[in-house]
Amino acid sequence: MAEPAPTLAAGPAGPADAAGPVSTAGSVGTVETQYLDLPGPVRLDCGQDLYPVRVAYETYGALSPRRDNVILVCHALSGDAHAAGFAKAPPESGTRDGFAAEDRDGVTGKALGWWDGMIGPGKAFDTDRFFVVSTNLLGGCRGTTGPSSTDPATGRPYGPDFPVITVADMVRTERAFLDVLGIERLASVAGGSLGGMQAFEWAILFPDQVDAVVAIASTHALHPQGVAWNSIARDAIMRDPAWQGGRYYDTGRAPDGGMGVARMVGHITYLSALALHDKFGRRLQFADDIRYTITEPEFAVESYLRHQADSFVRRFDANTYLRMSRALTYFDLARQYGGGSLVRALDGVRARTLLIAFSSDWLYPPSASREVADALRALGKPVESHVIEAPYGHDCFLLEEARQTPIIRQFLSKHSLGSE
Amino acid sequence: MAEPAPTLAAGPAGPADAAGPVSTAGSVGTVETQYLDLPGPVRLDCGQDLYPVRVAYETYGALSPRRDNVILVCHALSGDAHAAGFAKAPPESGTRDGFAAEDRDGVTGKALGWWDGMIGPGKAFDTDRFFVVSTNLLGGCRGTTGPSSTDPATGRPYGPDFPVITVADMVRTERAFLDVLGIERLASVAGGSLGGMQAFEWAILFPDQVDAVVAIASTHALHPQGVAWNSIARDAIMRDPAWQGGRYYDTGRAPDGGMGVARMVGHITYLSALALHDKFGRRLQFADDIRYTITEPEFAVESYLRHQADSFVRRFDANTYLRMSRALTYFDLARQYGGGSLVRALDGVRARTLLIAFSSDWLYPPSASREVADALRALGKPVESHVIEAPYGHDCFLLEEARQTPIIRQFLSKHSLGSE
Repeated sequence: MAEPAPTLAAGPAGPADAAGPVSTAGSVGTVETQYLDLPGPVRLDCGQDLYPVRVAYETYGALSPRRDNVILVCHALSGDAHAAGFAKAPPESGTRDGFAAEDRDGVTGKALGWWDGMIGPGKAFDTDRFFVVSTNLLGGCRGTTGPSSTDPATGRPYGPDFPVITVADMVRTERAFLDVLGIERLASVAGGSLGGMQAFEWAILFPDQVDAVVAIASTHALHPQGVAWNSIARDAIMRDPAWQGGRYYDTGRAPDGGMGVARMVGHITYLSALALHDKFGRRLQFADDIRYTITEPEFAVESYLRHQADSFVRRFDANTYLRMSRALTYFDLARQYGGGSLVRALDGVRARTLLIAFSSDWLYPPSASREVADALRALGKPVESHVIEAPYGHDCFLLEEARQTPIIRQFLSKHSLGSE
Repeated sequence: MAEPAPTLAAGPAGPADAAGPVSTAGSVGTVETQYLDLPGPVRLDCGQDLYPVRVAYETYGALSPRRDNVILVCHALSGDAHAAGFAKAPPESGTRDGFAAEDRDGVTGKALGWWDGMIGPGKAFDTDRFFVVSTNLLGGCRGTTGPSSTDPATGRPYGPDFPVITVADMVRTERAFLDVLGIERLASVAGGSLGGMQAFEWAILFPDQVDAVVAIASTHALHPQGVAWNSIARDAIMRDPAWQGGRYYDTGRAPDGGMGVARMVGHITYLSALALHDKFGRRLQFADDIRYTITEPEFAVESYLRHQADSFVRRFDANTYLRMSRALTYFDLARQYGGGSLVRALDGVRARTLLIAFSSDWLYPPSASREVADALRALGKPVESHVIEAPYGHDCFLLEEARQTPIIRQFLSKHSLGSE
């Protein structure tokens, strides 16, 4: 496939100098995922060089003449490059469906971006002012090179031969991608969960190229219970005989059973107990009384979980899941950069940092954000830390747009366009 | 097999009138699981009559001449009749191993009962005073009739044809078993988790035959997140192709993969995040640095979980797991007996009730105990409720013996032997 020329503006966007609050937040419109092949290999933490690497990406808003208004938005475990607007078409992916039914707009049937509530004219990441770039992560299954991509050495999908990657590898890939676009500095790197980990990693790996970090519902190192949940999810996939050691692509079978279990485990950790209580309670799904069945769902929450599992396996690749989960488990700034000390790890950071956590998030709890804030403050670095009281757990970072927006807009308003 | 004659005393035990505190708590010694075939069918909630039913049981201490010192101890999801002392031999079971290695005594290699710290001379359930009876639950895989037992209609294991049972079915089986032993009244019914559910159910089904309920780390109805975890665990088993719709007994294959995942999910819900932090942290298992592996464990907690899974599948039957999990999910006193009202459901209870919860138990949280206590108090019934501050989650009911013991001993001391 021919490499498409990089496009530096996509979708309808206002002028780059339209700063300040906008009364009515709008949509970035219809957006098409684009693809870019990196000119050289990506050097990975494991020691391998990976080549070729294609990156799927979308952009929203317009690049300023001085190229100083770029925000890189990083997705979490199961996201993709389609962060905002309506998708013109599903990405070229190694999965069966482009988008899950629940991601589609009820009227148009088109898929809305995973952070559409946060990216657009007048929104938290304001495309009237900033040029927002979103890529699918290295190792992904939504257009960026990953385990379902063709291994040039064999002409077949990598499968288990795709290297084990780290968050730093993802960030180095993003850096190489932005080089091709001619973007040297980032006004901000922003993301939630695994996306926030990338933001931290950017600030450490490329301290002179990041002005501001926005890390939401994230952490400097997943706590041991989170490590355990991820381990269980991966084991569920790898214990499925249809996984076949990762070489399932050409077999007509895929580890849907195990992937479904992995997704169900993940899903419950993304929600709070209160959210489940409010949404489902102990409501029975099909009848006024129990039906004495083990194979069929009885409670509404059981039926919901199965739906989540079935929908996920159609749009996501198991080998990508394994690598994303491993990368976010490995991520540990103190171990990687501080010899065990988080303060030492953050010593070189030059970006301003905004941290947002949610009170009911037990997977990436407020205490993790606090530890980062404390370390940055101990170093005398500028950091702003918020805990939003919200009942719905880790998923708040995708849901609580109204309360995040003013915090993020105000934080980003301190960025002086064109003044450097 | 010939039915063994019921034995009403087993193991070394002091005189039945030795009430009061004992300075040195002792062991009930070596105990052999016994078996009893019920004379008639058990009528189940689902409408079926189950026959034959064999019950595996152990007893500790001596029955008083007036038969008024009996405590029935009920086990939780993965327990068995071997509640105290050293096992003389593993039970006749439908599983590969009798006991898990970690249940064995380090010196003798013999298996200690699951509540050995609580049952014995001078212990919480004092065998110098009480005659303690423990049975394997209906549907079990440790000697009591369950899915791995022979279906008389086919001459082969029941498998999926074994009925879906409820906590009330377990209790009716226990009632029928005690009838054969000539025991009409219970000084107490006691248990943790699913065992506590049985204690509540006893007090409602047989209000005139239970003097006291001891329900530890239990609930009147599992909360929706608990319903979800159980649903995921069952799905993990049923999605394993080796489950074969439940007909795996004669195939040389068993759903070990799915069972392992179920156990790992359960295990994490039994512990608190703090317990995992204290026990494992983010400690690497095999090396000073990460090894870039997805299939092998990297963190100590990952290795621990796999060990738990491997050990569990050898000693527990998947179809039993499915039924125990379903029964504890169904359990809902307000739905079953109160038309939605817990107060109405408990209206007929005549037993004194002792409730113990643990501050860090997020699966059976203190709030659930409080709801039971509030309902009983609203009805003017005698209830004593304790929340023990302890950091290790639901498993506290098996671990925090020292702090439960005085509470339980004091509560049971109010039982006046021979005074009725």
